[in-house]
Amino acid sequence: MVKTTIRVIYGDTDQMGVVYYANYLRFFESGRNEFLRDKGAQYRDVEASHRVHLPVVEAQVTYKRPARYDDLLIIETILAKRGRASARFEYRVLRQDEVLATGHTIHACVDFNGKVQALPPALVEALGG
Amino acid sequence: MVKTTIRVIYGDTDQMGVVYYANYLRFFESGRNEFLRDKGAQYRDVEASHRVHLPVVEAQVTYKRPARYDDLLIIETILAKRGRASARFEYRVLRQDEVLATGHTIHACVDFNGKVQALPPALVEALGG
Amino acid sequence: MVKTTIRVIYGDTDQMGVVYYANYLRFFESGRNEFLRDKGAQYRDVEASHRVHLPVVEAQVTYKRPARYDDLLIIETILAKRGRASARFEYRVLRQDEVLATGHTIHACVDFNGKVQALPPALVEALGG
Amino acid sequence: MVKTTIRVIYGDTDQMGVVYYANYLRFFESGRNEFLRDKGAQYRDVEASHRVHLPVVEAQVTYKRPARYDDLLIIETILAKRGRASARFEYRVLRQDEVLATGHTIHACVDFNGKVQALPPALVEALGG
Repeated sequence: MVKTTIRVIYGDTDQMGVVYYANYLRFFESGRNEFLRDKGAQYRDVEASHRVHLPVVEAQVTYKRPARYDDLLIIETILAKRGRASARFEYRVLRQDEVLATGHTIHACVDFNGKVQALPPALVEALGG
Repeated sequence: MVKTTIRVIYGDTDQMGVVYYANYLRFFESGRNEFLRDKGAQYRDVEASHRVHLPVVEAQVTYKRPARYDDLLIIETILAKRGRASARFEYRVLRQDEVLATGHTIHACVDFNGKVQALPPALVEALGG
Repeated sequence: MVKTTIRVIYGDTDQMGVVYYANYLRFFESGRNEFLRDKGAQYRDVEASHRVHLPVVEAQVTYKRPARYDDLLIIETILAKRGRASARFEYRVLRQDEVLATGHTIHACVDFNGKVQALPPALVEALGG
Repeated sequence: MVKTTIRVIYGDTDQMGVVYYANYLRFFESGRNEFLRDKGAQYRDVEASHRVHLPVVEAQVTYKRPARYDDLLIIETILAKRGRASARFEYRVLRQDEVLATGHTIHACVDFNGKVQALPPALVEALGG
């Protein structure tokens, strides 16, 4: 599990005084990026070296408690499942010990023409075999 | 079913040349707003007259094909289910006849102190009883 | 002058109950896109046919009165100045007759390698010579 | 001068492969927040204790070089000018030593009814008298 911290800005909130629901998917992306960086598989390199994209094919968020302006959020990210040509990440968004939201994203592995292909072996190895 | 159209701008896209995944939740919000307006239950009035919020407790998106810059998207919105104190909206995002994404949001009904309460009768009536 | 309308959603607002200041630059982009479309010079075609980008080199906004949730905003856009390799657009954001914000953007004309080049003649002609 | 770092995510970029121009105003907000925090005048407290808002009345950005996905940006923020009821912040956005953008925001000081009022003395003192 890899942790990322994010400070909530005004631009993340909406007039209900809480973080706008779409922004959790931005937080998930930050968590995913740092997860890959932690494994030595920076997403920028995944694209540049392995010549693949990992587009999102499904995203889901469960909102439990609102995040607010200036909160220091922790995004916990795990690789929950790895298929031959897909990956599922799971996320928890916390404020200190309090879980504010959970969710997941499922990614396909495609080449630069959009054709599905197996996850590159070097990436699989970095992610833990 | 209520249709809303949205023109994709540069600010909606990311460097993969497609609409960034979080923005579909913005599109869903537009669809939901127009659905309520169409039923004579503008969300602004729901808050002002009925003194309730309808915060999102779950959101889900399935991404089938990418939306691109300058696409004229159609958001089709239905109220799929209405509970005593909750509502589920379902969405389809299309470019002409092609379905690009589907998804849903589930909303609780809470008063201004965040306490769950039944959907106001006038709102239920507007939504079709 | 070309007019575009935009409906403010929750996702555009912040916890002060007004539209977040960065979003006016999104509104300006919508105005600019519709300006070009109106002139038969859709920005998508500018890129595809003329092989140039028009990146923003300066942006400025003056905020006079707040825009709010569910407002139907009008974006008025003009091409204020056209240089050999640059263009300046000016914008007004209104709610009915009330001016909420004004601003401008200045754009360079660059080829796909980022090198400055003259505005393509066909684009200049479309924009009014 | 106070420095803040921001990691660029996919959601910040657009299909030109660079950070979308509106997002620099988000970066400026992060810089401004950390500037105030550094002075012991966290913006959350400015609102809660001093009962004032500091809405933006003008924003300007000069874009020199594009920021890209995964860049670790540094936002340098200074309070350039302090009026009786206004403040001007200036910003530089850097990638290592390279200046990518500069800009400023001007803020009014208003009470919770939107009426202009002098900057609270405690805030002025925190900002350096």
